[in-house]
Amino acid sequence: MKPVDPSALLDNLSWRYAVKKFDSTRKIPDDQWAAIERAIILAPSSFGLQPWKFMVIADQALRTTLRVASWNQSQITDASHLVVFARRAEMTARDVDRHIDRIIAIRNTPREVLAELRTMMLGAFSAPGFDVNAWAARQVYLALGFFLYTAAQMGVDACPMEGIDAARYDEILNLSAQGYRTTVVATAGFRASDDWLAPLAKVRFPAEEVIERR
Amino acid sequence: MKPVDPSALLDNLSWRYAVKKFDSTRKIPDDQWAAIERAIILAPSSFGLQPWKFMVIADQALRTTLRVASWNQSQITDASHLVVFARRAEMTARDVDRHIDRIIAIRNTPREVLAELRTMMLGAFSAPGFDVNAWAARQVYLALGFFLYTAAQMGVDACPMEGIDAARYDEILNLSAQGYRTTVVATAGFRASDDWLAPLAKVRFPAEEVIERR
Repeated sequence: MKPVDPSALLDNLSWRYAVKKFDSTRKIPDDQWAAIERAIILAPSSFGLQPWKFMVIADQALRTTLRVASWNQSQITDASHLVVFARRAEMTARDVDRHIDRIIAIRNTPREVLAELRTMMLGAFSAPGFDVNAWAARQVYLALGFFLYTAAQMGVDACPMEGIDAARYDEILNLSAQGYRTTVVATAGFRASDDWLAPLAKVRFPAEEVIERR
Repeated sequence: MKPVDPSALLDNLSWRYAVKKFDSTRKIPDDQWAAIERAIILAPSSFGLQPWKFMVIADQALRTTLRVASWNQSQITDASHLVVFARRAEMTARDVDRHIDRIIAIRNTPREVLAELRTMMLGAFSAPGFDVNAWAARQVYLALGFFLYTAAQMGVDACPMEGIDAARYDEILNLSAQGYRTTVVATAGFRASDDWLAPLAKVRFPAEEVIERR
């Protein structure tokens, strides 16, 4: 653990904004990109189940196709990197056991010790009213937060993008066949020097309207 | 912008885990807590609408009541700080105008320049199939990611908690009357020296199963 100065964290979060126009000539250095990928892998999730897949789309023709399914927003093709955040579309006993097996592999936990956890997870996913899409999407957004935070701390720009045709993404990427659904997209790279949004002040409600003390 | 070393970021994310037992005698220093609050205020959200409220619960009697609505999990009373992340339960023209007014106040943007944005937001929220709960909850989880990330970078422990009776929380905190709904809880403080989970290795699927390259 190497504590980071809080003022640096906050300065960098204030520096961050949702880039509208990337400099298409600049690429994120490999070591920084590796850190972003590692950070989203390390994101926590409900029961630790990681109900997600992160699709890193490097193929430029594919990015051009996805741009059409994204209201033609330029970030899809012009950012250094594009990631499609997909959520698991169902949670079956197989998903639960994949996680249990992984715990055993990493921690050498005896399987019988995990029986209660397994039953609890299976119970949660078969409970009436359980909405796998809502549940998994929440986890994916937490990972999106880790993505944006990591980029900002390294001085890498990014833009989270909800304005996409998720069903069309699923088709283009053939995600449904794998049991995943497009949830949200993130682009990362470096802002263009003439991005109109870059110089504008960040808009937040006053703290006293957002934070309530009891 | 003060770039942070990627290896420090990742070390601290690896150090982070979901604390099961807090040291109830240790409090988060004020400056660190202020940074955590500021970080969640700075979290990005869809259209920048910040459809959330963060309830910081200091009252110990109230925390005891909430613990009963949380499967009696000890973190609710024993952590240094408890935050209830609530989402906006509806998005009306009033919510949209609150945001538009704030943009004008901060950026001096002429109102007519924002007319198109206003129409777009109103259209999104009145579109058939728009699910305000799903949409707002996703944003809240992104902010939860910012909370956990900030704590970890400062060496502050935390635990995100979904295992709560959200409807009961709403009643206890009278959130529905304000137009909000309990979404998830986060506790923060310092791990107890005998927390059983602290020494266990983090469990993640192999990177090649989580990240797919195209």
